[in-house]
Parts: sequence; structure tokens; C-alpha cells
Amino acid sequence: MIYQNSFTVRTSGRGTTEITGRIEQLVRQSGLRTGMCHVFLQHTSAALVLCENADPTVRSDLETFLSRLVRDGDPIYRHDTEGDDDMPAHIRSILTDSCLNLPISNRSLALGTWQGVYLYEHRTSPHERMILVTVFGE
Amino acid sequence: MIYQNSFTVRTSGRGTTEITGRIEQLVRQSGLRTGMCHVFLQHTSAALVLCENADPTVRSDLETFLSRLVRDGDPIYRHDTEGDDDMPAHIRSILTDSCLNLPISNRSLALGTWQGVYLYEHRTSPHERMILVTVFGE
Amino acid sequence: MIYQNSFTVRTSGRGTTEITGRIEQLVRQSGLRTGMCHVFLQHTSAALVLCENADPTVRSDLETFLSRLVRDGDPIYRHDTEGDDDMPAHIRSILTDSCLNLPISNRSLALGTWQGVYLYEHRTSPHERMILVTVFGE
Repeated sequence: MIYQNSFTVRTSGRGTTEITGRIEQLVRQSGLRTGMCHVFLQHTSAALVLCENADPTVRSDLETFLSRLVRDGDPIYRHDTEGDDDMPAHIRSILTDSCLNLPISNRSLALGTWQGVYLYEHRTSPHERMILVTVFGE
Repeated sequence: MIYQNSFTVRTSGRGTTEITGRIEQLVRQSGLRTGMCHVFLQHTSAALVLCENADPTVRSDLETFLSRLVRDGDPIYRHDTEGDDDMPAHIRSILTDSCLNLPISNRSLALGTWQGVYLYEHRTSPHERMILVTVFGE
Repeated sequence: MIYQNSFTVRTSGRGTTEITGRIEQLVRQSGLRTGMCHVFLQHTSAALVLCENADPTVRSDLETFLSRLVRDGDPIYRHDTEGDDDMPAHIRSILTDSCLNLPISNRSLALGTWQGVYLYEHRTSPHERMILVTVFGE
């Protein structure tokens, strides 16, 4: 059995938004007991990450690290049509992830205790982001 | 229902080759309407990436970034059997990706407007790369 | 058809442990001929990687690279509750991977000749790591 649905997230610029609850809701709607949940972001300048969900400084430290690794406005980039954060957003998206596969057990996401699913906006300005969820199983 | 097929790509050395059309063709051949398409690269010195598909400078800027981050011939590497680009290719492959899962809706890949699928050759010389595609769905 | 099972790995601190055989064993137990094997790590401070399986210096060079890229005890981190390697482990986990999808053909993992599956412990001290495997197919 397959169930497919989508939702959008309005981001407020660079940073993470937790979406674990939204995905869990779709898993419940699917009615499936055991299987897999595929989460897909239809964009190349944001990402999906599985990250520690207890201490918010983990996500801010991750941002500090990434903004030092992939500098906005670095003169090595030729692609800057949409500004200093344009090319860095594409690189961050490739270093992080556009799709996640999460296991389903007992009608629920089988995540570890400290795992949360986050949409990571890599652009500095707010964007509307489309997420397509496909649930497989029995 | 499951459909599995493979294809090879002859790369011309380091850089990206778009393979969206090849994968779309296998999705059509499978006859499936809704599901998931798993794309798997059977190598550890190349990668699969979802990347912006409109401006080629995005892919060349990505290469500029990666070649600075993971330097060919860096004296920290002990594994250099096949040359200066040998170990960097393995590291790049892990920082990028060996498998992608793409959603299928309406008998077609449900990619975002600006998303393309690319084989990223990380070795400097041409290679023959095997890609195994498994399509699931109904 | 779906088959789900889990196993734990006791790591001896930072570094890689090959788990290809453990996963192959679960694929055989599932009895499936063609499909996909989803391997999921329920932790955010370790990872799963597909890596070259012939020369152990590839994995030690990878560790050398990552420990230089993501420095333990870097003063930019605020999250250091569990020590100097706490935040670096979360960052390494995001740069590498928490889930892998591997194709199954002829009742076996369809990996390339030089591909092995590794659990990568990113913490410096030993940990017990839970891996959940979901196998789909026919």
C-alpha cells in the first residue's frame, strides 16, 4: 500500500523548523502499521535534516559551522543572481539532504529518542517550501 | 509492484552529467503511477546529486567549492594508489551521495521545477559508472 | 512484502565498523528476491556510510579529513554538555548520513565490488548503537 500527500512550510529565512509532527500526522492518516516514510523537498536551496531535538544550541551551532564553511558572498562563486546567499544555499543543500527515509513501526515513525526531522532553510529570506511525503507499507 | 533496471554512464572526468531523462525513461517503462524511484550508484569515487538545473555555473561553482574543501594531493592522505585525486574522490563521494530516492506521481518523477539529477564524477579521468534503478509502487 | 528487524553495534569509540555482513544476513532472512533494504541509525552522533572496502587507509584518511574539518573543542560551539566531541559528532552525523537505501537483486545486496556499509561512530567514547533494517520487495 502507498499513500502520498504533501504540505508546505513558510520559513522565516535561514534556520531550522521542526516538521516531525507534520510527518507523523501523515503516517497516522495513511493507516499503515509497518513500512517506510519518504520525505522529499522539492527545492535545491533548502534541506531536510535529522538532528538532535533536545537542545536548540545544537541547531544554532550547526548554522555557525555551516556559515563559516560555506561563506556568503565568497568571491569564488559566479552564480549570484539572487544575492550573496544564492550559491551558498545550493552548496549547503548538497552537503545536507533533500530526501529522508524514515522507518515506520507500530503505526508511528521509529525515530531514536533524540532525533527530530527539520526543514533547514538555507536562503536568508523567507520562502514557501513544498514537501512531498510518500508512505509505503502494510 | 517492483521494476528494476540499470544503465551505465561514460564520464569524461571530473564534473556532472545530467541523468534525469534516463531515470524518467525507466519510470515510464515501469508503468507505475505512484511510488518511489531509488537510484543507486555502485561506486565510491563518484556520486549522485540533486542540483539546480537552470544555470550551469551552479555546478561549476559547486566544483570550485569542493576542490578547495577537499584538495587533490593533500599530504594528509595515505591512500594515493591511483593518484592525487584518489582519496579526495572517496571523501567527496561521502560528502555528496551514492543513493537518491525520488517520488513518483502521475507516472512521472515528482521533482521541483529547478531540480535535476546528476551523476557527479569525482575522479579526474573518464570512468564507466553503473547505476541501478529500482522502482516501487502501484 | 515487508520485513523489519534490528540489531545493535557496540562501538569502541570514534571510527568505522563494517556492518555489510549483518545487513546481508537480514536480507537473506527476509526471503525477498528483488527490492530495497533501508538501513536506519537511531542516533544523531554517529552515521552510516558507504565506503571503499579494500584498503583500510581510506577510512583512516576519511577520519583525518573530518577531524580537521570539524574540530573537537572548537570555541565556536556552545553545545558541549558531553564534552569536546559532542557538537562535532552532531555535525559529522549531518555531513555523513543516518539512513541508507540499498538495492536487492537475486536475494542479495546489489553493491558494487568495492562498496562496504560502515557504522561510523563520531563520539570518542564507546557507544551502543541501534540499527533498524526494513526490507521491501517480492
